[in-house]
Amino acid sequence: MTVHTAALRDHACLIVHGPDQPGIVAAVTALVTRNHGNIVTLDQYSDNPEGGAFFQRVVFHRQDLTAAVPEIEADLAGALGPLGLDWRLTDQSVPKRMAILASTSDHCLLELLWRHRRGELPVTVPMVISNHTKTAEDVRSFGIPFFHVPSAGPDKSEAEAKILELVQGNVDFIVLARYMQIISEDFLDAVGVPVINIHHSFLPAFIGAAPYRKAKERGVKLIGATSHYVTKDLDEGPIIEQDVARVDHAHSAADLQARGAYVERAVLSRAVQWHAQDRVIRHGNHTIVFN
Amino acid sequence: MTVHTAALRDHACLIVHGPDQPGIVAAVTALVTRNHGNIVTLDQYSDNPEGGAFFQRVVFHRQDLTAAVPEIEADLAGALGPLGLDWRLTDQSVPKRMAILASTSDHCLLELLWRHRRGELPVTVPMVISNHTKTAEDVRSFGIPFFHVPSAGPDKSEAEAKILELVQGNVDFIVLARYMQIISEDFLDAVGVPVINIHHSFLPAFIGAAPYRKAKERGVKLIGATSHYVTKDLDEGPIIEQDVARVDHAHSAADLQARGAYVERAVLSRAVQWHAQDRVIRHGNHTIVFN
Amino acid sequence: MTVHTAALRDHACLIVHGPDQPGIVAAVTALVTRNHGNIVTLDQYSDNPEGGAFFQRVVFHRQDLTAAVPEIEADLAGALGPLGLDWRLTDQSVPKRMAILASTSDHCLLELLWRHRRGELPVTVPMVISNHTKTAEDVRSFGIPFFHVPSAGPDKSEAEAKILELVQGNVDFIVLARYMQIISEDFLDAVGVPVINIHHSFLPAFIGAAPYRKAKERGVKLIGATSHYVTKDLDEGPIIEQDVARVDHAHSAADLQARGAYVERAVLSRAVQWHAQDRVIRHGNHTIVFN
Amino acid sequence: MTVHTAALRDHACLIVHGPDQPGIVAAVTALVTRNHGNIVTLDQYSDNPEGGAFFQRVVFHRQDLTAAVPEIEADLAGALGPLGLDWRLTDQSVPKRMAILASTSDHCLLELLWRHRRGELPVTVPMVISNHTKTAEDVRSFGIPFFHVPSAGPDKSEAEAKILELVQGNVDFIVLARYMQIISEDFLDAVGVPVINIHHSFLPAFIGAAPYRKAKERGVKLIGATSHYVTKDLDEGPIIEQDVARVDHAHSAADLQARGAYVERAVLSRAVQWHAQDRVIRHGNHTIVFN
Repeated sequence: MTVHTAALRDHACLIVHGPDQPGIVAAVTALVTRNHGNIVTLDQYSDNPEGGAFFQRVVFHRQDLTAAVPEIEADLAGALGPLGLDWRLTDQSVPKRMAILASTSDHCLLELLWRHRRGELPVTVPMVISNHTKTAEDVRSFGIPFFHVPSAGPDKSEAEAKILELVQGNVDFIVLARYMQIISEDFLDAVGVPVINIHHSFLPAFIGAAPYRKAKERGVKLIGATSHYVTKDLDEGPIIEQDVARVDHAHSAADLQARGAYVERAVLSRAVQWHAQDRVIRHGNHTIVFN
Repeated sequence: MTVHTAALRDHACLIVHGPDQPGIVAAVTALVTRNHGNIVTLDQYSDNPEGGAFFQRVVFHRQDLTAAVPEIEADLAGALGPLGLDWRLTDQSVPKRMAILASTSDHCLLELLWRHRRGELPVTVPMVISNHTKTAEDVRSFGIPFFHVPSAGPDKSEAEAKILELVQGNVDFIVLARYMQIISEDFLDAVGVPVINIHHSFLPAFIGAAPYRKAKERGVKLIGATSHYVTKDLDEGPIIEQDVARVDHAHSAADLQARGAYVERAVLSRAVQWHAQDRVIRHGNHTIVFN
Repeated sequence: MTVHTAALRDHACLIVHGPDQPGIVAAVTALVTRNHGNIVTLDQYSDNPEGGAFFQRVVFHRQDLTAAVPEIEADLAGALGPLGLDWRLTDQSVPKRMAILASTSDHCLLELLWRHRRGELPVTVPMVISNHTKTAEDVRSFGIPFFHVPSAGPDKSEAEAKILELVQGNVDFIVLARYMQIISEDFLDAVGVPVINIHHSFLPAFIGAAPYRKAKERGVKLIGATSHYVTKDLDEGPIIEQDVARVDHAHSAADLQARGAYVERAVLSRAVQWHAQDRVIRHGNHTIVFN
Repeated sequence: MTVHTAALRDHACLIVHGPDQPGIVAAVTALVTRNHGNIVTLDQYSDNPEGGAFFQRVVFHRQDLTAAVPEIEADLAGALGPLGLDWRLTDQSVPKRMAILASTSDHCLLELLWRHRRGELPVTVPMVISNHTKTAEDVRSFGIPFFHVPSAGPDKSEAEAKILELVQGNVDFIVLARYMQIISEDFLDAVGVPVINIHHSFLPAFIGAAPYRKAKERGVKLIGATSHYVTKDLDEGPIIEQDVARVDHAHSAADLQARGAYVERAVLSRAVQWHAQDRVIRHGNHTIVFN
């Protein structure tokens, strides 16, 4: 679980994913061994032993990893390609570059910046982008660049174009930390990196405007939050993490919202950590999380 | 929290409910005192100090309560009627009579019977009614009468008529312990006692058939259960209690369902206990729960 | 639950505490009414209806509260004194003054400052005192005065004297936000205000040095935190709040500690909020928390 | 997670455990493959990549498993013995035989019997042994043999001898489901199978008699339960599972105990399920749980 990237020198993470078939685990572990890697952790899951999908995450130590990567990748391509398996090899000592998009709420934004400063998120934060200026000073006090990209009016294409310009080539994933703008399908297609979102959720779910008021009227006893990958279907993408907090009749709608904020920052932080550690594999509209 | 009704001899529970206004708490507590009652617990809630609704639950000890009830009720009518307040006085040593309706699943049914036997639910159970015979032997091993009322075919009116015949005048509330039949509005109108239901719930909610399969496809990380009063809007009545359990990608849809069963029995048990102890006040489409 | 003190203008909180006896609730509510107060919330608890202790918290609205306080207090003294009851009347619109003592860890300290800035804690923070300088810049970025009081060497009396000088008359309570110094009994006697502490806790508890290592060796599955009032018996004072987080064998002792930090900041925040809202009544070595 | 043993025909579970060294995972997976096994799940953990201990659990499917076992075991002995590794191969379709020891409390006992009847525990229950007769009828209503072994007086050796006679050769593990007798070291040595216990636990822990009263006096906000393997150090053995429930000042010591009972039955049930599925590996005084 350690996330300090310095301690992860010469550690590689290998994700393998594809149609299940006998012998995959043996093939992959043999490959790691013949490339002089020592397996530190291995997680494996098959959603159906007969004709299902196979998922594996292996972290292994290999001295002089950087130099060996091309050779290992060639071996992977030769060994796993014919089996129809996708694979992805990452150097665990290289932190992922994360852009944060926010609006006026600071609870998710500051929690991410603070956990990053504590060394608990294996990321760098090249930029925070907001359609408001309210959080600028706080962000810069963490030594993080802040960019203001206003997003007034119904046409969001100009704002999205500016954001694209800022992030393309500069980040490995984007986090919507209570960014109160709908992301267009065009943007998602163009940006080419995963986008993680956080939204409130209730049992039962309340759709549309004023969810906290509706939850209050129905008298829910739990409020929650869901972090998921953004897809073209708004708020319907693969779930990474969820959690809830207990409430009762004495909480006002504003109290529900305040309490929900604490669930949101915790859930988003865990989702970001697991994504940054290559613990999350997307498959169809759900995720495999090896945590 | 003690539920042993024997220990509650000479204890009355008074529920007061209506438009908030200055002085209600003082008026009620003065009334209890002048009727020689000693307040054991008092819970009070106002959803808006200005023009909102007021809710109060007082448990008080009064020697020779049974003899004094008519006098106390007359005092309540005189004192609270003019203020437009509803009230309800119950003798805490008299357990409520609970009918349980079940189908083939036994997890909620047996949990209720078992907690009842342990003396943790202040109820009597005059009958269990089921549209199947599968649980008959188990129910009778608890010394509880079991009635089989089949419910085949699209027309449920005959079955509902039989159930009405069994419960009317004999029970104070009904619990649907995974009773897999839709209750008609006519039945609800005719039965005249509260009906408590339990249903699964997810974040986000999945409506319609095969909810566990849909939850699995979306990769939810929590599954839950909601207990609520039944109204004509199926599964949309006032919520009494909710809870969740954690799941992950390695759980099959069947695993989700099995784990959900444990949440359901715990949530329904708490809802039944609180209802039986007069801790739940319905208001609009939500509840005030003094627990 | 709203904590914005501006919204609490003309709201008083009355705590009554002492030997239980018939008629206390009626006497208190009558007193509030005859002083033109309208009860907003009332919580009451008796630990034993026969010869036990009685606890009550009433929040009431009274126009021009400030002017009326002397008169209400005189009425309270006259009415409750003869019954042997202690009472305490506070103006809810006056935030309590909280000093925070910290060492090098910032997780509890920053969480309190951040919740305070969000308007979620009804306090002012006149000062943060630390035996280290590590957090000085962060604290001052919140606009809060920071004082460095070194505490090297075995004799803590000089440091404690300086702290006393800073806090006496200036604060209403003190929070030890991971302040890694033992507080002397003399200091507690002299300071005359409540002191709230946070410490880790485990199931089962591990006493002495290196608790996280011991917890790891025993393979605990939960780690927790306890917030309590400080008494002369180190870490044995009345508990205000507790919570836990789940861990497993894959967590290192350092991981346990990191995860414990998140439990600590949440538990301490709730304890501080409830204390600041006069929701906590001390009695013997435990607390009554009306939350 | 499926536990129905019928569905586990031809599934083997292999546990490997010993000093970590490069290539173990590859060696084990290659062995499975050359023995015509197809890996269904693989969990692996190393407590320290350098000089630590290694733990692996592999479930694999092998047609005609029963016939192949001797050959696979010979291969395991040849391949893993020289590496200093312990291993254990079990047929997942063969349920473990579980004896339950109980006294007068039925909450843990009945929960285990009921989960067993639902097909959620991969065990058979050849016997329940109790030093009281109170639960005899309930046990037998599940079709389970009940044996009464009284244990009065200070000398427990006779009772333990009788229990030994009943269980030896007939069971694979023993569960103490609130069996209120201290187990002697001699018994543990003689019985030769794992013994699982459940006990209450608190934050902080209260040792000795009347723990619930002490917990009440200190005002704990959480009560919990711990399930562990029994060792000669009473209640100090390796922890398998733990959980807690929330309580408050309004709960009496009896309420704490009643609520604790629900935590106990849930925690013990999970511990038993994981043990029966070979998910728990003991190491030193802690456990690795692959769940």
